[in-house]
Amino acid sequence: MPASPIRRLVPFAEEAKLKGRKVYHLNIGQPDIKTPEVARDAVKNMTARVIEYSHSAGNESYRRKLAAFYQGLGINVDHTEMLVTTGGSEAITFALMSTVNPGEEVIVPEPFYANYNGFSVSAGVKVVPITSGIENGFALPPIEEFEKLITANTRGIIICNPNNPTGYLYSQEELEMLGKMAKKHDLYLYSDEVYREFCYDGEKHFSAMDLPGLEEHVIMFDSVSKRYSMCGVRIGTLISKNKEVISTALKFAQARLSPPSYGQVAGEAALETPDSYFKEVYDEYIERRDFMVEALNNMPGVICPTPKGAFYTVVHLPVDDADIFCQWILSEFEYKNQTVMMAPASGFYSTPGLGKQEVRIAYVLKKEDLAMAMETLAEALKAYPGRTN
Amino acid sequence: MPASPIRRLVPFAEEAKLKGRKVYHLNIGQPDIKTPEVARDAVKNMTARVIEYSHSAGNESYRRKLAAFYQGLGINVDHTEMLVTTGGSEAITFALMSTVNPGEEVIVPEPFYANYNGFSVSAGVKVVPITSGIENGFALPPIEEFEKLITANTRGIIICNPNNPTGYLYSQEELEMLGKMAKKHDLYLYSDEVYREFCYDGEKHFSAMDLPGLEEHVIMFDSVSKRYSMCGVRIGTLISKNKEVISTALKFAQARLSPPSYGQVAGEAALETPDSYFKEVYDEYIERRDFMVEALNNMPGVICPTPKGAFYTVVHLPVDDADIFCQWILSEFEYKNQTVMMAPASGFYSTPGLGKQEVRIAYVLKKEDLAMAMETLAEALKAYPGRTN
Repeated sequence: MPASPIRRLVPFAEEAKLKGRKVYHLNIGQPDIKTPEVARDAVKNMTARVIEYSHSAGNESYRRKLAAFYQGLGINVDHTEMLVTTGGSEAITFALMSTVNPGEEVIVPEPFYANYNGFSVSAGVKVVPITSGIENGFALPPIEEFEKLITANTRGIIICNPNNPTGYLYSQEELEMLGKMAKKHDLYLYSDEVYREFCYDGEKHFSAMDLPGLEEHVIMFDSVSKRYSMCGVRIGTLISKNKEVISTALKFAQARLSPPSYGQVAGEAALETPDSYFKEVYDEYIERRDFMVEALNNMPGVICPTPKGAFYTVVHLPVDDADIFCQWILSEFEYKNQTVMMAPASGFYSTPGLGKQEVRIAYVLKKEDLAMAMETLAEALKAYPGRTN
Repeated sequence: MPASPIRRLVPFAEEAKLKGRKVYHLNIGQPDIKTPEVARDAVKNMTARVIEYSHSAGNESYRRKLAAFYQGLGINVDHTEMLVTTGGSEAITFALMSTVNPGEEVIVPEPFYANYNGFSVSAGVKVVPITSGIENGFALPPIEEFEKLITANTRGIIICNPNNPTGYLYSQEELEMLGKMAKKHDLYLYSDEVYREFCYDGEKHFSAMDLPGLEEHVIMFDSVSKRYSMCGVRIGTLISKNKEVISTALKFAQARLSPPSYGQVAGEAALETPDSYFKEVYDEYIERRDFMVEALNNMPGVICPTPKGAFYTVVHLPVDDADIFCQWILSEFEYKNQTVMMAPASGFYSTPGLGKQEVRIAYVLKKEDLAMAMETLAEALKAYPGRTN
């Protein structure tokens, strides 16, 4: 695996900090929102004298409560149709290892979450990208384009909904089209729904699990990382009504013994998080998003579609090369002794050369910081020698 | 991956419990020893409001203290020569993925920790077994036997020292022979040392990391699971002085984002565990081991070598087929309304047909329970219809 464009920037950010500059991190998906107290308290109040292995599929009490949680969302699953995993990351790895042979292919709309590449390398799977474009807000590419890419080696399609990095929320109609195609060609539909709780403007999330007749095809990934702002507990879920998938994935789960015990306690307790928490988080993100989208679109030459979900957006910048610009802003630029770190979008495309004028921005900072970051970016775009028009 | 002989027994154990029988679990490596208070308290006292991702290589403060810990053991490493992993399991997976191409081979003395098969499947690696025998206490097979198995596809040798499942402790001399061979044939020497702290009878553990001139070849796996009896925190370490191995493994680590945050806090604090804790644990295991080895060898037809490390032993039983015997004792037998669950050794051999008269017994129960378990086993051997002589 080559180093990603974002990791290449880390030393430049460190250097800027050493010079005494404030660096606003717009590059990462680590929210500043606090973890629900009910989850942190459950860990503090643990009385077990031995921190033991759990069941390889995760504690049954947790899986039963998770099943009730999903049923509350209209997703009809029971506790035997899921495995608790070490983060959403492990759910993806187990799913690919359980369903795709080395050398076989999965189709993924790009730009996509860069770590899908890593998981695919682990599983020996070839990622085949299909390009979605900023000009229509990163909507699902036409089904005919997918069908052109399907070969005898294609095993499935990975979607992330709402999308990281684009913030795009797939519609029920788009999912139904994907589902129809998955059924027709007998493909798995891997649906990464870790940002489910982050849908804006009254739009409703439609889960791939709710596609009728696709029970044997859909494998859903979920995580507590973003929902409860507790990325560090490393707890995710792999869900499928396909019993063979679950039983094969369980063998990989048994080989790694168990998911983290502390994290499962936090995850189980987090299911009791009061609605007021989510309301506050929602209001916070909406305010940040609206502020940021407006600020970006007010900068000459910048195009920012309004993300309908998650807390990222992929933005077009009037620059020659976003990799170079993101490095320049860290190493050569400062505004009021501040600068910003962004993720060059090239790292989210698999097709070489794409995303050269795009960056991913995460709106995970509080509004005052976001305001200073936007002001800094606007000034940087004025000063950048490689500016295009 | 086929279901292991031990997992096949789970429903029979459940059934015995449903009949109201007490089942002594001699089959698992989950000690009943308490986790050090200093580790549990550190988690209880955490004040962070957001449970965030850590560095993908693990918290630097933890790695620096770990380096000091290893230096105290005479292992010369610094914090850049290690990654904190999600249990020892992930350390093994990352190491294999970073150093062995799919289809290439690693040689492993059998009987071996059954999950090595799982990790190898994950990494697409072929396990080539070399048999060690109960007749010489499961010592290292002669180097000539290893050399017969080395081909152009061989990338390395995995050892577990002290050994799970046999309890065998490799001598410095055996390690030096392995090291010489690894150097001669340019192989990796993967050394799983998670039972390092469990060495008995005054024998000293010799780490593969201490082999002079093997710095580029040795990859060590470690874990806090057994050392501090906290299997559930899922914290391990991958250690190597080979910079390319660490930098490749770091890419896999970055794809899965970070090891568990709570577990790292527990692991870092556990380094302050007082010596009295280890003294107590040692005394406890020695007492259990001596009692168990004597009880087993007193049963007619049973042969139990004295394990010098870890908390397992592989035992010869006078039975036709240990898989059948282990099922029979759970489903057909009871003594004072009690029975025992053991791990058929066939699951630890890769060569078909081996280990048919052997079981692995973990001495992780307190002495009174161990005594009842031994009494039950002795009675079962008298009653078993498939007894051999």
